[in-house]
Amino acid sequence: MSKNLQHATGKDIRLAAREGALTAPTAGLAMGHVQANLVIVPKELAFDFLLFCQRNPKPCPLLDVTEPGKPEPAGIAAGADLRSDLPKYRVWKNGDLIDEPPDIRKYWRDDLVAFLIGCSFTFENALLAAGVPVRHIEMHRNVPMYSTNIACRPAGRFHGPMVVSMRPMTPAQVFPATTICSRFGRAHGTPVHFGDPATLGIKDLSKPDFGDAVPVQPGEVPVFWACGVTPQAVVMAAKPPLAITHSPGHMFVTDMRDCDLENA
Amino acid sequence: MSKNLQHATGKDIRLAAREGALTAPTAGLAMGHVQANLVIVPKELAFDFLLFCQRNPKPCPLLDVTEPGKPEPAGIAAGADLRSDLPKYRVWKNGDLIDEPPDIRKYWRDDLVAFLIGCSFTFENALLAAGVPVRHIEMHRNVPMYSTNIACRPAGRFHGPMVVSMRPMTPAQVFPATTICSRFGRAHGTPVHFGDPATLGIKDLSKPDFGDAVPVQPGEVPVFWACGVTPQAVVMAAKPPLAITHSPGHMFVTDMRDCDLENA
Repeated sequence: MSKNLQHATGKDIRLAAREGALTAPTAGLAMGHVQANLVIVPKELAFDFLLFCQRNPKPCPLLDVTEPGKPEPAGIAAGADLRSDLPKYRVWKNGDLIDEPPDIRKYWRDDLVAFLIGCSFTFENALLAAGVPVRHIEMHRNVPMYSTNIACRPAGRFHGPMVVSMRPMTPAQVFPATTICSRFGRAHGTPVHFGDPATLGIKDLSKPDFGDAVPVQPGEVPVFWACGVTPQAVVMAAKPPLAITHSPGHMFVTDMRDCDLENA
Repeated sequence: MSKNLQHATGKDIRLAAREGALTAPTAGLAMGHVQANLVIVPKELAFDFLLFCQRNPKPCPLLDVTEPGKPEPAGIAAGADLRSDLPKYRVWKNGDLIDEPPDIRKYWRDDLVAFLIGCSFTFENALLAAGVPVRHIEMHRNVPMYSTNIACRPAGRFHGPMVVSMRPMTPAQVFPATTICSRFGRAHGTPVHFGDPATLGIKDLSKPDFGDAVPVQPGEVPVFWACGVTPQAVVMAAKPPLAITHSPGHMFVTDMRDCDLENA
């Protein structure tokens, strides 16, 4: 990645994506700025999805929601255009992936509502800053993610299981990790489980449903957090006529600083 | 108030209201249980209002939202019936108060959506438990509330100024008050201002827009919190064909404990 973009602002990243100069994943870019998951659905489904997020704040912490047809998430990135400012998108029709374009101008409609949802990058930065290691970052892999037997609270047409991410650490590291994450309720907050994966209905840690496996070393326990893949999985399961998301890892970079997500 | 109801459960209070045995304010009842503001609007306005709350979490911390036509806020009070379980309601047509009944069965419709919003009782209990005095409780008065020059972030048909509540304290007490309230993001969280009321556009502390005045003693500063009257004021200003709220002080008592509102 360009060192330039590592220390860029959120606006720099968005403009690079808008101009087509950036089509790569955003991990490590604009360090210290909050990155967000994107889910776009038609207005007809927007109340149900907003309600789903409100009812499931750990997997779906909302950072901003746009008005129908307006592609600017003014609360977190003034002047941004969600139709072009992410490096890569996924376009879904009736639950099927039909396109993975670098912009979505040709798919945009006046009835689309965009949801920006907090992302684990925020608390991972805080863990690293506090000396709590994050295995998949050390190994340059994607975080391992698993579907669970934890049912989200349904809302209208949307229902499904919670997806979790997993980070191995020692019991002594679980305490600072919990304290640190409790400050970031809008970035998934505290973990939801540690220890036996079977409690969550996870059969084999070495076979994640999304992302890459990482080893759990002797003396470590797997620690599980609610994951931002949950809302995407729930939307796709409902097979809406049209939905648009970011492409995995190709997030929306906001103007917010990580510290702006701390509880206040 | 009945000592019995002081130490009752949320369900006890709701049943007493349902049976008509309780028509009085709920302050001090079911101690330790979370109480909530109620706003009911037709489905047609529900997305805009949900969006308003999402965009203005300090005045409008959502505890639960019902599905259209369903009067049970299952996430915070299983088995409750919002048509009968508050001691007193206010019914508004086109922004005018038309009734203040003990139940709303005759006004209920299949398109109504109810919003339950966190209330300052939660953090006031925590302040008192920590030895931070709360003047209006000491004086057995309602908290003083003021309209401000702080604009809420608008959403669809809803817009308006933030309403704040005021509690006087010494500068040394502002620090524990801030720390304690930072734990309760879903009960208005940290204050929004202390000191000069003119900064917020408040002309005269002795003339609150809602509630009762309380004195600020020498050596104290007025401290201002975002207030749950804000969403009610915003809804009324939009003059919806029908809206229903709790009557001031006659709150919905949930099954949640105050500690359940702590950030996690």
